[in-house]
Amino acid sequence: MENVLIQGGLAGAVVGALAVLISFFLYRHVMRQDPGTSKMQAIAHFIEEGARAYLFRQNVTLFLFLGVLAPVIGVLFAVTSGAGRGVAAALAYLLGAGCSTAAASLGMIAAVRANVRTAAAAQKGLKPAFTVAYFGGAVMGLGIVGMALLGISLIYYICRFGLGWTEGEATGTALGFSFGASALALFAKAGGGIYTKTADISADLVGKVELGIPEDDPRNPAVIADNVGDNVGDVAGMGADLVDSYIASIVAAMILGAESGGGAFTILPVLISAVGLLSSLFGTFIVRVLVRGKPGAAMNFGTLATSGLFLLLLFVVTYKSGLSGQQWLGVFLPTLAGLAAGLVIGLTTDCFTSIDRAPTRRTAEAASRGTAINILLGFSYGLVSIVPSILGICVATYAAWRFAEIFGVSPFYGIGISAVGMLSIVATIISGDAFGPVSDNARGIAEQGGLGGEVMEIVDALDAQGNTSKAITKGFAIGAAALTVLALFAAYTHLAGIDIMRGINLMSHTVIIGLFLGAMMPPLLSALLILAVGRNAERMIDEIRRQFREIPGLLAGQANPDYRRCVDIATRGALRELLFPCSLAIVVPVLVFLVLGKEALAAFLGGSILTGIIFALFMANSGGAWDNAKKYIENGAFGGKGSEAHKAAVVGDTVGDPFKDTAGPSLNTMITVMSLAAEVFVPIILLVLG
Amino acid sequence: MENVLIQGGLAGAVVGALAVLISFFLYRHVMRQDPGTSKMQAIAHFIEEGARAYLFRQNVTLFLFLGVLAPVIGVLFAVTSGAGRGVAAALAYLLGAGCSTAAASLGMIAAVRANVRTAAAAQKGLKPAFTVAYFGGAVMGLGIVGMALLGISLIYYICRFGLGWTEGEATGTALGFSFGASALALFAKAGGGIYTKTADISADLVGKVELGIPEDDPRNPAVIADNVGDNVGDVAGMGADLVDSYIASIVAAMILGAESGGGAFTILPVLISAVGLLSSLFGTFIVRVLVRGKPGAAMNFGTLATSGLFLLLLFVVTYKSGLSGQQWLGVFLPTLAGLAAGLVIGLTTDCFTSIDRAPTRRTAEAASRGTAINILLGFSYGLVSIVPSILGICVATYAAWRFAEIFGVSPFYGIGISAVGMLSIVATIISGDAFGPVSDNARGIAEQGGLGGEVMEIVDALDAQGNTSKAITKGFAIGAAALTVLALFAAYTHLAGIDIMRGINLMSHTVIIGLFLGAMMPPLLSALLILAVGRNAERMIDEIRRQFREIPGLLAGQANPDYRRCVDIATRGALRELLFPCSLAIVVPVLVFLVLGKEALAAFLGGSILTGIIFALFMANSGGAWDNAKKYIENGAFGGKGSEAHKAAVVGDTVGDPFKDTAGPSLNTMITVMSLAAEVFVPIILLVLG
Repeated sequence: MENVLIQGGLAGAVVGALAVLISFFLYRHVMRQDPGTSKMQAIAHFIEEGARAYLFRQNVTLFLFLGVLAPVIGVLFAVTSGAGRGVAAALAYLLGAGCSTAAASLGMIAAVRANVRTAAAAQKGLKPAFTVAYFGGAVMGLGIVGMALLGISLIYYICRFGLGWTEGEATGTALGFSFGASALALFAKAGGGIYTKTADISADLVGKVELGIPEDDPRNPAVIADNVGDNVGDVAGMGADLVDSYIASIVAAMILGAESGGGAFTILPVLISAVGLLSSLFGTFIVRVLVRGKPGAAMNFGTLATSGLFLLLLFVVTYKSGLSGQQWLGVFLPTLAGLAAGLVIGLTTDCFTSIDRAPTRRTAEAASRGTAINILLGFSYGLVSIVPSILGICVATYAAWRFAEIFGVSPFYGIGISAVGMLSIVATIISGDAFGPVSDNARGIAEQGGLGGEVMEIVDALDAQGNTSKAITKGFAIGAAALTVLALFAAYTHLAGIDIMRGINLMSHTVIIGLFLGAMMPPLLSALLILAVGRNAERMIDEIRRQFREIPGLLAGQANPDYRRCVDIATRGALRELLFPCSLAIVVPVLVFLVLGKEALAAFLGGSILTGIIFALFMANSGGAWDNAKKYIENGAFGGKGSEAHKAAVVGDTVGDPFKDTAGPSLNTMITVMSLAAEVFVPIILLVLG
Repeated sequence: MENVLIQGGLAGAVVGALAVLISFFLYRHVMRQDPGTSKMQAIAHFIEEGARAYLFRQNVTLFLFLGVLAPVIGVLFAVTSGAGRGVAAALAYLLGAGCSTAAASLGMIAAVRANVRTAAAAQKGLKPAFTVAYFGGAVMGLGIVGMALLGISLIYYICRFGLGWTEGEATGTALGFSFGASALALFAKAGGGIYTKTADISADLVGKVELGIPEDDPRNPAVIADNVGDNVGDVAGMGADLVDSYIASIVAAMILGAESGGGAFTILPVLISAVGLLSSLFGTFIVRVLVRGKPGAAMNFGTLATSGLFLLLLFVVTYKSGLSGQQWLGVFLPTLAGLAAGLVIGLTTDCFTSIDRAPTRRTAEAASRGTAINILLGFSYGLVSIVPSILGICVATYAAWRFAEIFGVSPFYGIGISAVGMLSIVATIISGDAFGPVSDNARGIAEQGGLGGEVMEIVDALDAQGNTSKAITKGFAIGAAALTVLALFAAYTHLAGIDIMRGINLMSHTVIIGLFLGAMMPPLLSALLILAVGRNAERMIDEIRRQFREIPGLLAGQANPDYRRCVDIATRGALRELLFPCSLAIVVPVLVFLVLGKEALAAFLGGSILTGIIFALFMANSGGAWDNAKKYIENGAFGGKGSEAHKAAVVGDTVGDPFKDTAGPSLNTMITVMSLAAEVFVPIILLVLG
C-alpha cells in the first residue's frame, strides 16, 4: 500500500515536471518564429508592454495580499496544530499562489508574443499559423496545469513520507496550496474581469462615441489597455480559474479519499490527474500532426484522442490500484461520468451562443424590432440555457454517487473523483481556450499590419475556431466549478466533523437560513462587480479625456498617448474595487459559521452553489448570445452595420459585456473561494473553541 | 377543547361573512357616487367593457381547466380515501376556485367603476375623491379575503363537526380549497401578467412608434386592452396572488397544528386570521375618518391602527386559547415576528424603487450616459435589493422557530403561524394595492375628460400615493409568499411522512439533485413567461395593423376600432401561452417525486423557494427602478422628455415591464402552485403505492 502512495506521489510530480518542461520548450519554439514586419512588431510591442504593466501591478497587489494572509494562516495553524504544520501551511499557501502566478504570467506573455508570430506565419499558410497559435496557447495550458500537479504531489509526498505526517495532515497542507491558487484566481478572474470591461467600455465611449475615431485606433490612450484586456480575461483569468478548480477538485478528492479508507483512495486523484495530463501532452502533438484543412476538426480530434487515451490509462490506473474487489469500478465509472458531463456541458453551451444557431439568430432578429426586445430575448435565452447544464450536473452527480455506492466506494468520494475526472483533461481545454485570444489578436495585428487577402482568410478561420473554443471553455469551466464545489462541500462536511448519518437536516431553521444567505451571495456579488465596472470606467474615462486635452497633437496623430498610465489606472481601480466583494466572500462564510453553526455554513455553501451556477451560466450565455447576435448583424443580416438593428444589438452587446466577462465568470471563483475559506478556517476555529 | 374548535370555526365564518357583507355595502356606496360627465362615462365604459371581456374569457378557460382537474382530484381521493372524501375534495377545490374568482371579478368591476367616480369626486375635493378610490379598492380587499376566510372556516367546520372527520381529514379537504384558489391565482397573475404586457407593448409599438399617435389615443384598437391591463395585473392578479398565499398559509398552519397537538393549535390560524380581518375592517373606516391633507399619512396611520388593534386581539386570542403554560407565547411571538417582517420587507422594497431615493435617481443619471449603462444599473440595483428582504425573511424564520421552541411549541408550527401573522392584515394591503390602479385610471380619465388644474392636482396626489402602495404591496407579497411556501414546505414534509428527526439530509445525491432542479425552475419559468409576452405581442400587433388597414376612416378618427377583438386576442393568447409553464409547475414536482423520491421533492420545493424569491424580488425591483427612473426624467431631470436620457430610460422601462408585471410577480404564484401540487398529489400517490 505504502508503495502505491509513493509511486502515485512521484508519478504526479514526474508528469507535472514533464509538462512544465514541454511548456518551456514550446515557448522557445514559438519565440523562434518570425516576428513579422516592423509595423506588426510595433503593435505587438505595445500589447506586450500593456500586459507587463498589468501583470506587474496585479502581482504586486497579490503579493501584498499574500503577505497579510500567509502569516495569518501560518499562525492559526501553528497555534492549533504545532509550529511545523503552521510553517508548512503558510509555505503551501505561498507556493500555491506563487506557482499559479508564475505559470499564468508566463503563459500570458507567451500568448501575447504568439499573436504577432501567428500573423506572420499566416503568410506561409494555415498549418504554420495554426501551429504557432496553438502552441502559444499550449504554453499556458501545459505550464499551469503541470505546475499545479507538481505542487500538489510534492507537498503531499514531502509531508507524508518526508515528514511522516498522517494522511489528514498531508492533505490539510495541500489545502493551503489550493487556497493560495484561488487567491490568484480571484485576482486574475474577478480583478481581470473588472479591468477588461473597464478598458473596453471607456475606450469605446470616449473614442468611438465622443471623438468618432475608429475602434483599435492607436491614438486612443485606452486602446492598449483594451487589447491587453482580452488576454487578461481569456488567457490569465480563465487559466487561473480552471486551475483553481483543478487543484481544489484534486485536494477535495484526496481529503475525501483519506476519509473513506485512505491509501489508494487518497492518492488516486493525483494518479488520475497525472494520466490525464499525460494524455493532454499526447493530444497536443496529435493536433499539430493532424491539422490540415479545418483547424476545428484537428482540435476536436485532438480532444477525442486525448479522452480516448485517458480512458485507457484510467482503466489501467484504477484496475491496478490495488483496491479490493470491484471497488475499482466505483472509481472508474464516476470519473468517466464526470468527464462525459464536462464535454456535454461544454457542447450545449455552444448551442445557445453559437452564431449559427437559433437562439443567437432570434436574438439578432429581435434587435430589428427594438433594443428592449433584443435585451429581453437574450436575457430569456440565457435563463433557458441553464437547463441542459444543470441536467448534466444532476446526471453526473447521480451517476457518480450511485456507481460509487454500488461498487462499495463512499459516494462522497464518487462525487469528488468525478470532479477530478471532469478536470482531468483540463490542460487541453486551457490550451484551446488560450488559442482564442491569440488568434483574435493575430487577426487584429494582421489587419492593422496591412497583410493581404489570403492571409486574412487564414487568420479569420483561426479566429472563428478560437471563438468556438472560448465558448466551450466557458461552459466547461462552470460545469467543472459546480462539481468541484460539490466535492469541496463534501470535504467541508468531513473537515467540520458533521456526522454523515445525521447529516445536514433541511428541516431546521439554521439550515434554511444558511441556504437563503448562501443563495443571496452570487446575485449580490454579480451586482457589486457590475457596479464596480461602472465606477472604474468613470475613472478611466476621466484619464482618457485628460490625455486628449493635455497632450498636444494627440488627436492629430502627432504625439503618442500614455498607454501605460491608462493600463495602470484601470488595473489599480479594478484591484481596489475587488476589495469589498473579496472580503465578503471570505468573511461571510466565517460569520455564518460563528453565528449559526457548522450545519448552517454547509447549507450556506450549498445555497451559493445553486445560485452561483445559475447566475454564472445565465450571464455567460446571455452575454454570448448578445455578442454573437451583434456579429451576425455585422455579417449582413437585418440591415447589417449601421442599421437600427445594429444599434440595438450594440446596446445588447454592451449590456452583455460585464455579464459574460466580469460577473458571470467571476462567480465560479467566488464560490470556490467561499468553500475554501470555510475549509481552511472552520477546522481551526473548531480547534480553538475546543 | 372541542369548544375552542367550534368557536374558532364559527368566528372565522362570522368575520368572513361580515367582511363580504361590508364589501358589498362599500360597492353599493361607490356605485351611488356621481359618475361624471358623459365624456368621462364613455371612456370608463370602454374600460369596463374590456374588463368584462377579459374576465369572461379568463373565467371560461378557468372553468374548463377546473372541469378537468376537479374530477381528477375527486377520483384520486375517492379511490384512496373513500367516496365521501373524494366528493368533498373536488367540491372544496371548485369552491376555492369559484369563491376567489367571484370575489376577484367583482372586485375588479368595482375598481373599474370606481375610476370614473373618483375623477368626478375630485371636483369636490381630496377627501371625497380619496374616499371613493379607497373604498373602491376595499371592495376587492375585504371581499376576497372575507370569502377566503369564510370558505376555509366552513369547510373545516362541516368536515370536522358536521361529518365528524378527523382533524387531518378536515385540513386535507381545506387543502383542496387552497389548491382551487391557487388555480385562479395562476390564471389571474401569470395569465394576467402576460396579457397586460402584451397589450402595453403592442399598443405602444403600433400606435406610438409606427403611426405616431399619442399614448391612450382612442383610435388605437389596443388602447382599451392596455387600460384593462393595469386593472388585471394590479387588482385581480395581485389580489388573487395574496389571497392564494393567505389561504395556503392558513391551511399549512392548520395541517402543522393538527400534527403538533391539534385542538387549539389547529384552529388558531383561523382565529388569528379572523381577528386580523376584523382589525382590517376597523382600519378601513379609520382611514376614511382621518384623511385630510395627505392621503399617504392617513393610509399609513390606518395600517398602524390596524396592526395595533390586531396585536391587542392577537394577545387576547392566544392568551385565552387554552394552550398549556407559556405555549401561548410560542404562538404569539412568532405571529408578531411574521407581521413585523412583512412590514419591514414592504418598506425596504420602497427604498429601492421609490422615485425619491438614490437607486432610482442613479439609474436615471445612468440613462444620461447611455442605454446600456441604464440597463446595467437597474439590473444591479435589483440584485442588491434582494438583500434586505432576504435578511428579513431569515430573521423572521429564526425568531419564529426559536420563540416556538423556547415556549414548547413545534418550531414548524412557529414558521407556519408566522406566515399567518404576516398575512393577517392582508385585507388592508390588498385594499391599498387596488387603490393604486383606481387612482391611476382616475387620473387618466380626468386628463382625457379635460377636467381642470385643481382636479388634476388632487388626482395626481392620489396617483402618487397609489404608486407607493403598489410598490409596498409587491415587496409584501413576495415576503408573504416566501414564509407561506416555507410553511407549505413544512406541511409537505409532514404529509409525505418524512421523519423530522432523520429529516432531509443535504448530504445525499437525491436531495442535492432535487435542490438543483428546484432552483432551476423559477429562472426557467421567468424566461418562458417573458418569451410568451413576445409571441403574444406579435399576434396582437398583427391584429392592430389589420384594423388600421381594414377599417376605413379609423386613423382619421371617423370610425371606431374593435376594442373587444383586441382584448379577446390578447386574452386568449395569454391563456394559451400559460399552458406550458403551468403544466411544468404541476408535472415536474410529481415527476421529481416519482423518479427521485419524497426527500428529493422536499429539496426541490426548497430550491424553488430560494431562487423563486430571488428572481421575484430582483425582477420586481429592477423593473420598478427603471420605471421610476423614466418618470424622474420625465419630471424634468437630465434633459426631461425627448432627451437622449429619456430615450434610454424608455428602453429600460420596456425591458422592466415584463420583469415587474409578468415574470417577477408570477413566480410567487408558481412556487405556491408547485408546493400545493406536491401536497395534494404526493399523499395520494403514497397511498396508491401502498
